[in-house]
Amino acid sequence: MQRFRAPAALLCDEACTVVRDAVVDVGGDGRIAYVGPYSSAPAVEGPERMLSGILLPGLVNTHAHSAMTLLRGVGGDLPLDRWLREAMFPAEVRMTAHDIFDGTLLGAVEMLLHGITTSTEMYFEVDAQAEAFLQAGARAVLAGVVMDGLPSKTWQEMTDGIGRVIDERGLRYGDHERIELAYGPHSSYLLPSEALSEIGAQARRRGALVHLHTAETIGEDAAIRTTHGSVPRLLETLGLTAGRLLVAHSVHVDADDIALYARHSVGVAHCPSSNAKLASGVMPLVDMLQAGVPVGLGTDGPASNDSLDLLAEARTAALFARSSSLNAAAVTARQALLLATRGGAAALGRSDIGALEAGRWADLVHVAVDSPAFATGLEVPDEQLVANLLWAAGSRGVTDVWVAGRVVVSDGEAVLTNRRKAQAQVGEAAARLRRDVAAD
Amino acid sequence: MQRFRAPAALLCDEACTVVRDAVVDVGGDGRIAYVGPYSSAPAVEGPERMLSGILLPGLVNTHAHSAMTLLRGVGGDLPLDRWLREAMFPAEVRMTAHDIFDGTLLGAVEMLLHGITTSTEMYFEVDAQAEAFLQAGARAVLAGVVMDGLPSKTWQEMTDGIGRVIDERGLRYGDHERIELAYGPHSSYLLPSEALSEIGAQARRRGALVHLHTAETIGEDAAIRTTHGSVPRLLETLGLTAGRLLVAHSVHVDADDIALYARHSVGVAHCPSSNAKLASGVMPLVDMLQAGVPVGLGTDGPASNDSLDLLAEARTAALFARSSSLNAAAVTARQALLLATRGGAAALGRSDIGALEAGRWADLVHVAVDSPAFATGLEVPDEQLVANLLWAAGSRGVTDVWVAGRVVVSDGEAVLTNRRKAQAQVGEAAARLRRDVAAD
Ligand SMILES: [Zn+2]
Ligand SMILES: [Zn+2]
Repeated sequence: MQRFRAPAALLCDEACTVVRDAVVDVGGDGRIAYVGPYSSAPAVEGPERMLSGILLPGLVNTHAHSAMTLLRGVGGDLPLDRWLREAMFPAEVRMTAHDIFDGTLLGAVEMLLHGITTSTEMYFEVDAQAEAFLQAGARAVLAGVVMDGLPSKTWQEMTDGIGRVIDERGLRYGDHERIELAYGPHSSYLLPSEALSEIGAQARRRGALVHLHTAETIGEDAAIRTTHGSVPRLLETLGLTAGRLLVAHSVHVDADDIALYARHSVGVAHCPSSNAKLASGVMPLVDMLQAGVPVGLGTDGPASNDSLDLLAEARTAALFARSSSLNAAAVTARQALLLATRGGAAALGRSDIGALEAGRWADLVHVAVDSPAFATGLEVPDEQLVANLLWAAGSRGVTDVWVAGRVVVSDGEAVLTNRRKAQAQVGEAAARLRRDVAAD
Repeated sequence: MQRFRAPAALLCDEACTVVRDAVVDVGGDGRIAYVGPYSSAPAVEGPERMLSGILLPGLVNTHAHSAMTLLRGVGGDLPLDRWLREAMFPAEVRMTAHDIFDGTLLGAVEMLLHGITTSTEMYFEVDAQAEAFLQAGARAVLAGVVMDGLPSKTWQEMTDGIGRVIDERGLRYGDHERIELAYGPHSSYLLPSEALSEIGAQARRRGALVHLHTAETIGEDAAIRTTHGSVPRLLETLGLTAGRLLVAHSVHVDADDIALYARHSVGVAHCPSSNAKLASGVMPLVDMLQAGVPVGLGTDGPASNDSLDLLAEARTAALFARSSSLNAAAVTARQALLLATRGGAAALGRSDIGALEAGRWADLVHVAVDSPAFATGLEVPDEQLVANLLWAAGSRGVTDVWVAGRVVVSDGEAVLTNRRKAQAQVGEAAARLRRDVAAD
C-alpha cells in the first residue's frame, strides 16, 4: 500500500467534495483502497508521500486525435470542411503507422503533463496508438476509425479489422487495463447508413463503445435533418443508441435530440474550443446537463484546438455556457471540473476512472499551490479553492501525475518517455509530411 | 548597446511580420535601436544574448484591477451586480494602501511572468500601485478611480486629487517613463454626468487619458439607452470623446456606437473572459475591427477572470469572435496576437510600446520552443508558427522578459521581486480581509 497525503483533495464525487488534510491509499493492484480525511484513515504500512498542494483524479479526455500533433497549427484559419479537405486529409493519407506512433506518443506525454490520464482517441493504426499510450504510461480508449471511400480499404474491412483486434486482445488489455478498444465510425456524413448499422451491431455483440462525430456543423445538421429528422434520430433508427455510444460535438441538436440522448444515456464529448475555433457553433451544454445527459469534455485533435489541455477546455466550456445562457451561475467552477473528470468517465460509460473513490484506478494529479493562483491561501472556502484551480491555476499547476498508482509525471516532466526525443521525432515526421504534400 | 538574437521574432507591426534569425538591438536609453534580420543588422559593440526561441514585444493589458489578487476566486459564481455589491465592495472598503500595494505587486509579478509588460489599472491608491509596478520592473497606466457615494471622499475631491498628483509627478514619470497617470471614472452608472464632464475637461487640460467601464451589462445599456441614446453617445455629449479615451467592455453597442468610437479613435479594452465569466455578453469584436476602432485586450481584475494572462485572453477573444460570427477566419492567430500587443498600445493612444520597432521601448518577451507546442519545428510556415504560439504555447512558454532592456523575468521567475514573499503577503492580507468582512 502506498499513501498520498495532501492539504486538500477534490474527490470529484457528485458534489465535488473538497477534503482537507486528505489521504489517498493505493493498493498493490493500482486501485484506490481508501480516500478521505487523514483523521479517519486506517493504519497502513508502506511509503507515505507528503504533498504540498491539491490532489484530484486524473482528467478524462473524451475526444481526441492525438496523432495530429504532427499537424499542429496547419491551416488554422480555415473553416471545418476546407480545413479537413485541404489541410488535413492530404497529410493524413501520407502518414505511416510509425508517424502515428510518434504523434500519439507526444500527444500522450503532453496530456499527462496537463493532468489527462485517459484519452479517447479516434484515429488510424490502433496498434501503434496503443503502443504509444502504454509506453507513456497513460490510459486510452482507442476507437479505430472507420471511413468510406478510402482507396486502401472498404468500411467493411476496417470494421471487421477492429472486431478481430478486439477478439484477439480483449476489449480491455495492457497492465491495469490501460487500453480499451472501441469502434470509431468517423461520422454519418463519411459513412453510409448500412455501415453505421453494421458497426453498431458488431459493437453491441462485443460490448464495445461506438464513438463518432455528430452534428458538428450547420451543414451536416441540415443535410441529415431533412432526410432523417436529425443525426441523433438517425443513430437511434440505426440501432446505435441501444449499445454504448459516445458522440463528439453535437453542436446542432434540438430539445428532442437532447431528450433522446438522455433517454439512451448517450455520452457527449463536448469540445468547446474546437467548435469555436472552427466556427461550428456553441453546444447547448446547460440544456444537456439539465436533461441529465452524461457530458464529458474533449480537446479534439491538436490541429483543431490546438492544445491538449482539458483544464483549459473546462474553463472554455464554462465561459461559453455562461455567455450563451447569460447566466453567470450556469456552470460553476465545480461543475466545470466535474465535466473534465467524473463527467468524462460517465460519458464513456466507465465507473473505474474520473474520481477519487475506493475501487477506482489510482489515476492521480497533483497541482502545486506555490503560485499567484493560490496566493489567497488554502484556508479559503471550498468554492474559492476550486475557483482558483479552474480559473487561475489551470494545467500550469500540474506537477505530478500517477496512473494506477505509478508515477508518470514528476516535477513537471514526463518520467517514462523522453519528451525531447518525442518532440524531435514529431518534428522530423512533420517535416517529411510537409515535403511530401508540397511535392505533390 | 545590448543585442538579442533569436531564431524568430514577431514584430507586431501591422502585418505581424515574422523575422527569421532576428536581431533586436537595445540602446542605453532602453529603446530599440534596430530590429530585423541578422543578415542586415549593423555592427555593434556590447553583449549579445543568443536565444533559442521566439521574441515578441511585451504584451499590453488595457484593463485590469490587479490589486484584486487579494480577492481572487471570491464569489466566482455570481452575476456582475451581485458579485460587485455582495462579494467585492465589502472587502474593498476595508483595503488599506498597504493591502493595495501587496495585491498590485503580486499582480504585476504574475503579469510579467505571463509576458505582460504594461498594464492599465483602474483602482484606488495610485501611489501604492505605482510603487508596486516600479518595484516589479513593469510598466503601467494608472487610472485613479473616481466614484460617487463613497463615505470618505466626494467625486470632486477624488478627481482633484488625481489632477494634483499629475501636476506634481508629471503625466509620465519613473525611470524609462514606466508610469503614466490617468483618470479612472468608474462608469456612467456610478457617477453623475456632471462628474464625467468635469473629469473629461480636467483630463483634456493635462493631456491625460480617461479610462472607464462602459456598456458592460444589458441593464447598464438599457438604463442609459432610453435617456441618452447609449453610453458612447452620452460620453460624446459630455465631451469625453474630444480627449484621449479608453473604454472597457462595450459589450452592448450598436453600429452607430461603433462608428462613433471609430470617428473619435476611442480605444476599446476588450475583456472576453470577464464578459463571459460574468455572463455580460459578447462584444462585437469583428465589427469593431472592421470599423477601424483601436481595440486592445484586457484581463480585467483577477477576481473576475481570474487569471492575469493576456495570451489566454487573445485565444479567448479569437474563439468568441469566430464562434459568434460563425466564421473561422474572422480573427486569425496573427490578428489575435496583434490585439494583445500593438492593438493595446493603439487603444491607449501610445506608440512607444506594443511592437518591436526602432524607437519604441525595448519591452521584450522570449517564448521557449522546447515544448510539445512547437514540436513541428521552427521551419514551418509563418502562419503555423504564430498559430503554435497563440493556440498551443500561450503564456506557459514565456521564459524571459525585459522592460526597457532590463531583465525582469529570467528562466520563468521574477527577478526584481521575491515572488514567494509577495504571495505570502497577499495571503496574509486576504485572510485579514476575510475575517473583517465575516465579523461584520
Ligand atoms: Zn474530432
Ligand atoms: Zn473592470
